[in-house]
Order: sequence, then C-alpha cells, then structure tokens
Amino acid sequence: MNRNLHDVGFLGFDVFGTVVDWRSGVARAAEPFLSSHGIDIDPLGFADEWRSLYQPAMQVVRSGERPWVKLDVLNRENLETVLSRHDADFGSITEAELVDLNKAWERLDPWPDSVEGLTRLKRHFAIGPLSNGHIAGMMQLARFGGLPWDVITGAEVAKSYKPMPQTYLRSADAVGLPPEQVGMVAAHNVDLKAARAAGLRTVFIRRPYEHGPDQKTDLEAAEQWDVIAESLTEAAESLGCK
Amino acid sequence: MNRNLHDVGFLGFDVFGTVVDWRSGVARAAEPFLSSHGIDIDPLGFADEWRSLYQPAMQVVRSGERPWVKLDVLNRENLETVLSRHDADFGSITEAELVDLNKAWERLDPWPDSVEGLTRLKRHFAIGPLSNGHIAGMMQLARFGGLPWDVITGAEVAKSYKPMPQTYLRSADAVGLPPEQVGMVAAHNVDLKAARAAGLRTVFIRRPYEHGPDQKTDLEAAEQWDVIAESLTEAAESLGCK
Repeated sequence: MNRNLHDVGFLGFDVFGTVVDWRSGVARAAEPFLSSHGIDIDPLGFADEWRSLYQPAMQVVRSGERPWVKLDVLNRENLETVLSRHDADFGSITEAELVDLNKAWERLDPWPDSVEGLTRLKRHFAIGPLSNGHIAGMMQLARFGGLPWDVITGAEVAKSYKPMPQTYLRSADAVGLPPEQVGMVAAHNVDLKAARAAGLRTVFIRRPYEHGPDQKTDLEAAEQWDVIAESLTEAAESLGCK
Repeated sequence: MNRNLHDVGFLGFDVFGTVVDWRSGVARAAEPFLSSHGIDIDPLGFADEWRSLYQPAMQVVRSGERPWVKLDVLNRENLETVLSRHDADFGSITEAELVDLNKAWERLDPWPDSVEGLTRLKRHFAIGPLSNGHIAGMMQLARFGGLPWDVITGAEVAKSYKPMPQTYLRSADAVGLPPEQVGMVAAHNVDLKAARAAGLRTVFIRRPYEHGPDQKTDLEAAEQWDVIAESLTEAAESLGCK
C-alpha cells in the first residue's frame, strides 16, 4: 500500500464528477422536459448552465450570509433561475415536474470504473461520500447506481459546504477518526487542497470529461497528491486493494 | 405488501437488540479482560450491568441537563463505573485496553436472520440504523456484521436520543421523507410507541432473548403495530420483499 495512506481508516469521496457523471445524467433527465415545454436549449448546455450556479449558491451559505440549507434546496432555486433565463412558461410547468427534474441529481450513472473501484477499496477502508450533496440525495444516488457506501458524511452532517475546513473535520469526527487517518478522494484540485490544509490525506482521480470534451479545469493534478490515478480501480490498485 | 406501509420509502432500525446481539458480543469481548484483571463477575452479568447504565446516561442528555454527547462517550463513562463497582485495579488497566473494550459495541454479531432480512428489505425500501448509537459505531458494526445499510440516521444525525420525538423527525428529514413515509423497526415497544406518536409507521420484531433466557420485557407486542414479526426475514416476507 502507498505508504502515505497506511494508517487511513476512512476514504471520503467527492461524488458529483468523481464517482458519478452528472452532466450526461442531468441532460438525459432534462431532455424530455425541455422538449415538451419548448425550451430552446441543448440538454447538455442546460446541465452545464444549471451546474454553473452551484458554487455561487453555496458561497452565500459559506459566507454566513444565508443560514445552512441543503443542496436540493439550492438546486431547485437554481433550476428556476435557469428556466427563467430561457423564458420558460411557468404557467405550463407543474410543481411535480420541477420536483422530478430536481431529482435528476439523484439518478446519475456512476463512471464505468466506480462500482468496481469502490467495492475493492471497501475491502480495506470504510468508504462514504464526503460530498456537498445532502444525505437523502446521496442515499438515492447510491441506490440508483449501486454505490456500496458504509456511511454518508459531508456537507449535511457537517452543516457546512466544502471547501470550508469544518466540512472535512466534522466528517472525520463523525467516522471517529483524526483528520490524518481520513483520505479525501476527488477529481477537483480545490477540494484536495482544502482537505490537505485540514490535515487529510489526498487521492486525485483524473476525470477529464466531467465537463464534456472541452473541459479546461482539473485536467491534471495541481499538486503532488498522495495518490494520483486515472480511475477508482487504478486508485484501488495503487492502494493495494485487490 | 402490508397496506399500512405501501407508501413507506425508508425503514429505520433500532440496532442494539433488534439487529445485533449485544449481550453475547459484549460478554465475549469482556471475558479475557475480566479474567486477566481478576475481576470477579460473569461476563454476561457484566454485559447486563454495563447495559443497565445506558438509559440513565442518555436520560441526562435527553433532559437537557447535559449537552449532546455521542454514545461512545457515555459507554466509556459507564464502563468505568461498572469496573469501579467491582473494585477493578485501574493502575493495572491501560487506556488502550479501555478503548478496546469500549469498542465491543462495534463488534456484535447480527442475529441469524438479520443480514438476509435486511438484504431482502433493501430491495423495496431504503434502510438504515435509526439507533441511539453514534455514526462511527454504526459504521463499524455494519462492516463487522455485513449489514447492508443505505445510510446511517439516528441520534447523532438528530443530536437527540430516542425516544425524544426529534430523533425520529430529524432522521425522517435527513432521508427526505415525511414521518408517515418512514417505518421504525424495533424490538422495543417504547421505541415504537414514540415513533408512532411522531407519525412514523411501526414494525415490531420479537427478540425474546435479547436480555438472555430470563428476559421479562418486550416479550410481546404491546400495541397493534403495523407489522409484528418473529424475525427480520419474517418482516420482509410480511412486507412482500422476496
């Protein structure tokens, strides 16, 4: 096993982008909705635009300007913002349709290596989301994609959004370990930078198509993370998990 | 499926007694410790005595007299109380031994029907502990016994001990469901009574040997719970989970 992680007891995972492919999944869910309401935007573009409001919405909570609120609430507000921008006719859209479309974030396919990689990692480490997603969403996503988590940690457990240090620290506390015995697994350098600053170990998974073929960010590891891998199966290999 | 539970989306489980056999497991862990330190008490009696301090310790938190604290902290304090009562020589006992013995609560065997019952129930319902145990303890117990939870809810998520209503209500909120779409599964009538009062559905599992051969409490369902079963496999059967 990689010597930096030999005493790690828990691996916490970023989920959107690192474990599941949100872009294709959101586009798939949006396509029939956009089409039936005559909203003229490419479903993948719609997914990108919806996702682009994610960080700014969390930032209002991180800054303390807004009290803690779960991610599905932010996603729902952002959905309405995107629809407004594209002149959607809200008179013809039902509440049930909006609720259902917001649940697109709970029906995302794992990347092809995710289930096997997690299954192998789980033999040596306790594993769970350390995501900004809410508990119910992480639970549904696990049931949808067969993700074999032991526990769900992250923003809702910590009442704090990454990359705030307390999100990592309270998640470590929830699994009963000091930060240095927790590894953060993510496809995003910003996430790992904050995790490392909080004392966690770091595992970078390269996901160069998370944002589609023209992705510009996180194409490479920005620092010498403890493990750098092309997939969760490669990370399992590198950590000695057969 | 039982008509009372047809729209339930999540089953929350009491764990100590309902899913796992704490008495044998704690006795098994205590036996070598008691023997090596010459503490003259039967290991099963030791388990009973340790467990008997569980409700009073939580009561101090429930009443508001003491701020929220995780169950492993209470268990550790109670362990020292029991050892003191039996004149243990604390000078000869290491901190590591106490830490390890306290983790007996994380290494308890599931009842023989538990893993199969949960596996079948999981095909129709999201499932998770709705226990007074802490998150890390529930996680370790699941890894030890192969309990296939989707999520961990309960006291630590709610920052409140059962049978306080908010323990049930905040757990339901964490899985994104209204109380009437959550079922509480327990071998304890008091737990189900509180769950029902909070609006949850109720499943009673009879565990007449949880406290050993002379058990006096919870031998029968005290009310007409929505489901009454002799095991988790029978509950799965009764709920139509093949």
